[in-house]
Amino acid sequence: MAGTNHTRAAQGAGDDGPVVILIQPQLAENVGMVARAMLNCGLTRLRLVAPREDWLSEKAIAASSGADGLLRRARDYDSTEAAVADLTRVYATTARRRDMVKTLLTPRTAAAKLRGFIAVGEKPGVMFGPERTGLSNDDVALADAIVEVPLNPAYCSLNLAQAVLLMGYEWFQSRDDSPPEQLVINGTLPASREVLLNFYAHLERELDACGFLRTPDKRPSMVRNLRNIFNRADLTEQEVRTLHGVIKELRYGRNGREPTDNAGSDT
Amino acid sequence: MAGTNHTRAAQGAGDDGPVVILIQPQLAENVGMVARAMLNCGLTRLRLVAPREDWLSEKAIAASSGADGLLRRARDYDSTEAAVADLTRVYATTARRRDMVKTLLTPRTAAAKLRGFIAVGEKPGVMFGPERTGLSNDDVALADAIVEVPLNPAYCSLNLAQAVLLMGYEWFQSRDDSPPEQLVINGTLPASREVLLNFYAHLERELDACGFLRTPDKRPSMVRNLRNIFNRADLTEQEVRTLHGVIKELRYGRNGREPTDNAGSDT
Repeated sequence: MAGTNHTRAAQGAGDDGPVVILIQPQLAENVGMVARAMLNCGLTRLRLVAPREDWLSEKAIAASSGADGLLRRARDYDSTEAAVADLTRVYATTARRRDMVKTLLTPRTAAAKLRGFIAVGEKPGVMFGPERTGLSNDDVALADAIVEVPLNPAYCSLNLAQAVLLMGYEWFQSRDDSPPEQLVINGTLPASREVLLNFYAHLERELDACGFLRTPDKRPSMVRNLRNIFNRADLTEQEVRTLHGVIKELRYGRNGREPTDNAGSDT
Repeated sequence: MAGTNHTRAAQGAGDDGPVVILIQPQLAENVGMVARAMLNCGLTRLRLVAPREDWLSEKAIAASSGADGLLRRARDYDSTEAAVADLTRVYATTARRRDMVKTLLTPRTAAAKLRGFIAVGEKPGVMFGPERTGLSNDDVALADAIVEVPLNPAYCSLNLAQAVLLMGYEWFQSRDDSPPEQLVINGTLPASREVLLNFYAHLERELDACGFLRTPDKRPSMVRNLRNIFNRADLTEQEVRTLHGVIKELRYGRNGREPTDNAGSDT
């Protein structure tokens, strides 16, 4: 699922998103993949606490798939405390429940809250733990709330970049104004009712003529059924023109041959 | 972010989810990572159309991180038509807009619709194209609608497993009943108002005694501010007991020494 449209505005990109803090990431490649997932979601501020490998290594840059600018701007810290010192809110992502009295948020709720904090000028961040062990209890205790991704409880192992992707995805969705459903018609116009009614008239005239609608007591329901089929199709003007042609040529052929008789529909 | 709780019921897991159809996946490793992402989201039915590599190779099994059962049950087909023949609805995931008149859904809307189809006994599926090129226009034309993930339009390259993960995540969320926000208190009880009021009485009595609340006209607002601080903390019974101890020992010391005089707060 590749595709980047450089001509569309980078909505969501910019330095207004929450800071992503990776605590002791083990593999540089994973840091690169996190950068890629962040940029997908319009997140740009990455902090690293005691990364084990060089996050600007060749492997990391390759794994970032073009998001290496984000890696180059990443800042590293010796301790979690230092990495979160200037933040006003900190969320901790975890997969395991901890023996702590702590607010638990879904990524969707967390994203909405992060938007709210940023809207009033706060500077929030989200922490992700080392690949194998997750965040330490001490790091979790530094956070205001825990974010847990609702996933199949019998199998919820996410890699680091996937965890960042899901949190980032919800962050992006929380501002995104994509219509939940739309018909993409690429510049053509949706057919007006008049255009449709003209088409139905054409269709029904030819179906009367060829004998398809020959049984008077069945005709009204047959006509309704056909109209419903084409109504459901959300036709464009261009498509209606195409269908006019389909009917005409089915009935008369390309060279305008005489209408076939109705024998076929009587057998 | 690792963590799998085998004792919790595998809600969402089962063969009731949409079929995932990978069209010409290039790398076996990616098929393995797709299996992992699917299982995370409770999806179990995988179909492959003309995969280039063996999806049961060592690399694929390793990449599936324990979701290899799903790989073993995967079915392969020669053509997209054959792979979708028994399905009643098919969605196509794409990153590029196509020059087609087609309904476009967000993953969230698509997930809700898939739930609806399955609830009435239909068998829907979601197609994902080859890693580099995405679905062909002919494959897209076979689908009822297109699913496009709203992401940073200036950078929306997702790898195959990430695309499956985001669709599967929305599938799982569409049924998940995790509360959007909850306080996890691990078996302890939230403090009742009575328990809190007793605590406030204790605190205020000691603050009166030590002189902190000595200015009569400031006392009411000071008391309100202190109560608000502790109200916001959503205290449990155990935490209130701890705080009673904190006040007592701050004031009298561990060995019950005499209260210090109030000189300190007068300077």
